[in-house]
Amino acid sequence: MPIVTIQQFPGSVEHKRELARRITEAFEEVYGNSPESVQVFFQEVDGEHWARGGALGCDREDGPR
Amino acid sequence: MPIVTIQQFPGSVEHKRELARRITEAFEEVYGNSPESVQVFFQEVDGEHWARGGALGCDREDGPR
Amino acid sequence: MPIVTIQQFPGSVEHKRELARRITEAFEEVYGNSPESVQVFFQEVDGEHWARGGALGCDREDGPR
Amino acid sequence: MPIVTIQQFPGSVEHKRELARRITEAFEEVYGNSPESVQVFFQEVDGEHWARGGALGCDREDGPR
Amino acid sequence: MPIVTIQQFPGSVEHKRELARRITEAFEEVYGNSPESVQVFFQEVDGEHWARGGALGCDREDGPR
Amino acid sequence: MPIVTIQQFPGSVEHKRELARRITEAFEEVYGNSPESVQVFFQEVDGEHWARGGALGCDREDGPR
Repeated sequence: MPIVTIQQFPGSVEHKRELARRITEAFEEVYGNSPESVQVFFQEVDGEHWARGGALGCDREDGPR
Repeated sequence: MPIVTIQQFPGSVEHKRELARRITEAFEEVYGNSPESVQVFFQEVDGEHWARGGALGCDREDGPR
Repeated sequence: MPIVTIQQFPGSVEHKRELARRITEAFEEVYGNSPESVQVFFQEVDGEHWARGGALGCDREDGPR
Repeated sequence: MPIVTIQQFPGSVEHKRELARRITEAFEEVYGNSPESVQVFFQEVDGEHWARGGALGCDREDGPR
Repeated sequence: MPIVTIQQFPGSVEHKRELARRITEAFEEVYGNSPESVQVFFQEVDGEHWARGGALGCDREDGPR
Repeated sequence: MPIVTIQQFPGSVEHKRELARRITEAFEEVYGNSPESVQVFFQEVDGEHWARGGALGCDREDGPR
């Protein structure tokens, strides 16, 4: 515990590295969790596997947002 | 909100497009949600990553159902 | 299969009943799934367990949307 | 998008408020997401609904960690 | 890792205790995971929050199955 | 019902086959579920999509554990 699952569009390894660092730090400082107790999972989806407003991301003019 | 996550076997983009449209419409008509507030995620799994009856889909005679 | 998990604000039983019916019907008509193969899970969250824009739903002026 | 789901032990509203703020800020600064595009869900579990090492949290001497 | 999330109808603590023990043992013996690396989460749902065949569990004659 | 979702590092088909068999058997013996009512999903993640202690698995000296 805690387990953090993130559903997002594909991001670079650098960005995921930085995000994992900051989220873990937040648990450490807010809840007092030991960093090793915090796990983060990244589930990346593309525009064919996500929809908003009833339209797939690949069909939306503004792209996947 | 609402967030809809679908675990299913791989489907075509056309089918996912139609499903996302209909599910979003259902939220709009039943709950009165604005379409843009509804997000749908498709998590597709193959027969090596799903089991029923204690057997992987790829080992079942009736295939992945 | 398919498994549909819905994260939403609390709704009435009548609304969930209608939504489950329509979503299942969509899988039946779009994918040809048998209705009995479709399962829908409702995970309801209140404004203390959901945030958008960095603010909990219970703290947002427009409420949980 | 992005959707962040946190599985954790029950925490105070103040702590969840602070955590949601910091996580959203991290997405804003690392990915450039608009804050309003970030949603955070808190799924709190007690010691009867979580196990580690094959033992429920309520049965572990060190409690739920 | 591994994280096991179980969606099920409400069960007794005794049953969840036994299930967590056996699932963790399976990871230990099949994958060689250390027991302490395995976490199990139980998400219990009642018949108003689950549907099959387009009908809520509370409306089905055979009850929630 | 029940639905079991496993987040783990990539494993062989043989291992997943054995794990699905044992987990399903556990539900059968502990809860009395019919085997066909039990579904297991495997979500495999690599070291770029998982972090512990604030570091991605691909950056940890002990690798993904």
